Amino acid sequence: GEWASRHRSEAEPLGVLDNMSQHVVNGDSSCGKVLTLDNMNPNVKRVEYAVRGPIVLRAMQLEKELKEGAKKPFNEVIRANIGDAQAMGQKPITFFRQVMALCSYPELLEDDKFPDDAKQRARRILKACGGSSIGAYSASQGIECIRQDVSRYIEKRDGFASNPDNIYLSTGASDAIVTILKLLVAGEGSNRTGVLISIPQYPLYSATLADLGAVQVNYYLNEDSCWSLDIPELKRAVTEARQHCNPRVLCIINPGNPTGQVQSKECIKNVIRFAKEERLFLMADEVYQDNVYRDNEFHSFKKVLFEMGSEFSSTVELASFHSTSKCYMGECGFRGGYVEVINLDPGVKAQLTKLVSVRLCAPVPGQALLDLVVNPPQPDEPSHATFMKERTTVLANLAEKAKLTEEIFNTVPGIKCNPVQGAMYTFPQIKLPQKAINKAKAGQEPDMYYCMRLLEEEGICLVPGSGFGQRKGTFHFRMTILPPTEKLKIVLKKISDFHVRFTKEFSE
Amino acid sequence: GEWASRHRSEAEPLGVLDNMSQHVVNGDSSCGKVLTLDNMNPNVKRVEYAVRGPIVLRAMQLEKELKEGAKKPFNEVIRANIGDAQAMGQKPITFFRQVMALCSYPELLEDDKFPDDAKQRARRILKACGGSSIGAYSASQGIECIRQDVSRYIEKRDGFASNPDNIYLSTGASDAIVTILKLLVAGEGSNRTGVLISIPQYPLYSATLADLGAVQVNYYLNEDSCWSLDIPELKRAVTEARQHCNPRVLCIINPGNPTGQVQSKECIKNVIRFAKEERLFLMADEVYQDNVYRDNEFHSFKKVLFEMGSEFSSTVELASFHSTSKCYMGECGFRGGYVEVINLDPGVKAQLTKLVSVRLCAPVPGQALLDLVVNPPQPDEPSHATFMKERTTVLANLAEKAKLTEEIFNTVPGIKCNPVQGAMYTFPQIKLPQKAINKAKAGQEPDMYYCMRLLEEEGICLVPGSGFGQRKGTFHFRMTILPPTEKLKIVLKKISDFHVRFTKEFSE
Repeated sequence: GEWASRHRSEAEPLGVLDNMSQHVVNGDSSCGKVLTLDNMNPNVKRVEYAVRGPIVLRAMQLEKELKEGAKKPFNEVIRANIGDAQAMGQKPITFFRQVMALCSYPELLEDDKFPDDAKQRARRILKACGGSSIGAYSASQGIECIRQDVSRYIEKRDGFASNPDNIYLSTGASDAIVTILKLLVAGEGSNRTGVLISIPQYPLYSATLADLGAVQVNYYLNEDSCWSLDIPELKRAVTEARQHCNPRVLCIINPGNPTGQVQSKECIKNVIRFAKEERLFLMADEVYQDNVYRDNEFHSFKKVLFEMGSEFSSTVELASFHSTSKCYMGECGFRGGYVEVINLDPGVKAQLTKLVSVRLCAPVPGQALLDLVVNPPQPDEPSHATFMKERTTVLANLAEKAKLTEEIFNTVPGIKCNPVQGAMYTFPQIKLPQKAINKAKAGQEPDMYYCMRLLEEEGICLVPGSGFGQRKGTFHFRMTILPPTEKLKIVLKKISDFHVRFTKEFSE
Repeated sequence: GEWASRHRSEAEPLGVLDNMSQHVVNGDSSCGKVLTLDNMNPNVKRVEYAVRGPIVLRAMQLEKELKEGAKKPFNEVIRANIGDAQAMGQKPITFFRQVMALCSYPELLEDDKFPDDAKQRARRILKACGGSSIGAYSASQGIECIRQDVSRYIEKRDGFASNPDNIYLSTGASDAIVTILKLLVAGEGSNRTGVLISIPQYPLYSATLADLGAVQVNYYLNEDSCWSLDIPELKRAVTEARQHCNPRVLCIINPGNPTGQVQSKECIKNVIRFAKEERLFLMADEVYQDNVYRDNEFHSFKKVLFEMGSEFSSTVELASFHSTSKCYMGECGFRGGYVEVINLDPGVKAQLTKLVSVRLCAPVPGQALLDLVVNPPQPDEPSHATFMKERTTVLANLAEKAKLTEEIFNTVPGIKCNPVQGAMYTFPQIKLPQKAINKAKAGQEPDMYYCMRLLEEEGICLVPGSGFGQRKGTFHFRMTILPPTEKLKIVLKKISDFHVRFTKEFSE
């Protein structure tokens, strides 16, 4: 990808250059290391992942310095760089954690403190485990009764049948996304697989494509109409890509990361039609499916595909992804997730099953947690009221913070912010004075310079837009809306003040 | 790899061929699937993983049939194919699971039922988690205080310093092995990275090399001297490999999987010297380090390397791997593990840190469990006595079963079994009558035919030696020694009887 290589140097962790200068290039094979930067896997060198890039390493250093008593213009580093809800203070869902405790230490099943529905869920999960223990490996595709529960969840969500044989449990959604992309990458030279990804994108995609040596094909979301996905732009991207690669895959993130838009049913229909016409395999990253605010509604690609009738539902190949890490649960640490594959060639499906078996299985605690997400307390069960209250509170808070973020940013001259319709992020455009752009030019993206200055001066950790991709000459940052409301207000105020100060500093 | 491709067809799950025949080859791009067996990633097609191959799929079918009331010559399928201790009835270590329950549901920290040391460990782990929750992402390299505990464990084990910066926590050892191999694979044609692996090997290695498109270079363990690793054979392998690839990596599994040998310190020294002379990066898979029986002693590569003095300890590049899945804990489902990297080029290390960040982090419950493995109850702590009793019982049982297995198999004419010095497996050689070999020739390895017959007739699931590699014309199977002693005796008797019967059936 053009964008990927353009930003390579910037995504390398801090300290790399220092370390490299200690290490003389060794053309001589008799001395020096067997494995060096010069002779290592070149695809790995091309990988970048800005969400955990240099700015986060610097944030960690600052935290250490603060701990050791260093004087800074701030008392704490606020990490608004990553969608890590519980790290920002969100409480786990009680029912989920009760069941996890019961599964971890089944002696607690005798304890009166735990509600019956939690015990029933734990017993059911344990019964499905080898030796009735979450310490046993599961089947590689995932525990069967959990895959059945996932299918029922999808059926209830969409109103269309789902086959548990088409569900693969994974180590977070990331793992499943990488696995499906891996199946699809083949060919050499101008026949190499091209993968269409949105710009801005979530950098797992560009990183994985670099790792796999696939061709990244960018399509740009339309910032002027709330990051809409426009078919003419898709058509432009695929047509141009056909000159130099074999575009076979179209990746969509809905609700959008980092851009926070929620796609309309009409848009999804058009995308599906386009995929069929252009013979593209669809990958729908839907990990934020419960994170939908205002009057927006989430439509899964699976549902829309099946509403379009058998001409589409029996032909278009689709993989859709979900996770335990986002939505109202925010259980990132458990690394639970799944993919549902639709219309996958049976021979390819057998290869997929074989491929996932090499890593044995997804973490069983994550599988168990996923089971609770897709099979939460029902209205007639004792934990239902608490569960609903906890769930609703988290989602209502997020909706409030989404609105607050948009409102406050849009009062600042030089910051322009689309509505946060869904997901957990805002991706506002920032106007940077030419002098600031010039100042940063020495090997650093201007928005990286901006974010580094913000981190050093205010202790707020954001990710520069260049880490996600953006139209040339525009600048953005990604900020999560996860800090608790009172803290979020402070964050928004600090960023706003910083932006005004920064703009003034570099004005003529 | 010559061996890898020779066995390709066999490792494909049952049913693939049936499915394929339904699916007409589509040269015509206007109809048919976007993704087919013909145009998918060819490296994935080359991947095979016998431990979960066709024989396991057939075992699952048989279990289903039994459940549905089918009459079989057996009442249950006994899975001796995979080192899954808890699935075979081994009980988890109480202390570990108490801490996991406390971490999952911290309200239990107020509960009098839990011992103080379990609470103290849980509090310490939670304090090191974002938002004091195992539901938050950790640092990509792993939680810092857990990496420190891993280093202290290594220091205590080896008597040499370990730097927490060199520890990377992983999703089981498999994940770390794949990641380190990925760094090392580069070059094209005769300059492509070659990786030396033992034959027999654990098929994660051949599968990963196929996936990465690296060159598998086989060195054969010496079955006649208890699967010893002989330097002349290593020399032969590397010399021949230099004709067609660039051998840069030497993988060792100690204690051995599937072969159960434990390497002497002298052998390890010779291997290290060889690696230095031949400029090979060492990968030491030491996940069975506590599984050592009889009078054998485990020596880590790290310790031996440092005992050899700075000429070696400051130059030889080594990655050594450990896991929560084996030893006395057998917590496979948690997918905990780590790698320690020694003498890694600092620039490459920064690339490794970047690469692991793309998947965000290893599962936090698995990280927490690893912390307990490397920092178990101490003599002055309330859980110490129970912990030691549980640990000792498991290891003593395994030692007894290792002995039993060797003794019984060696009474059977046509089965020859090396001592099980360590790990969890026996890999006996079986003599197959020529008529049986001829019978199997229709696309099936003779030992696969043997194991399938054993499964159908006795309900015992083993893995054929061809799934691990073996010298041409020899046949083996891998069996775990994990079934409880009384059941293991039955298994050994059934296999012995089957072998006699099978031999008789095909005798002239």
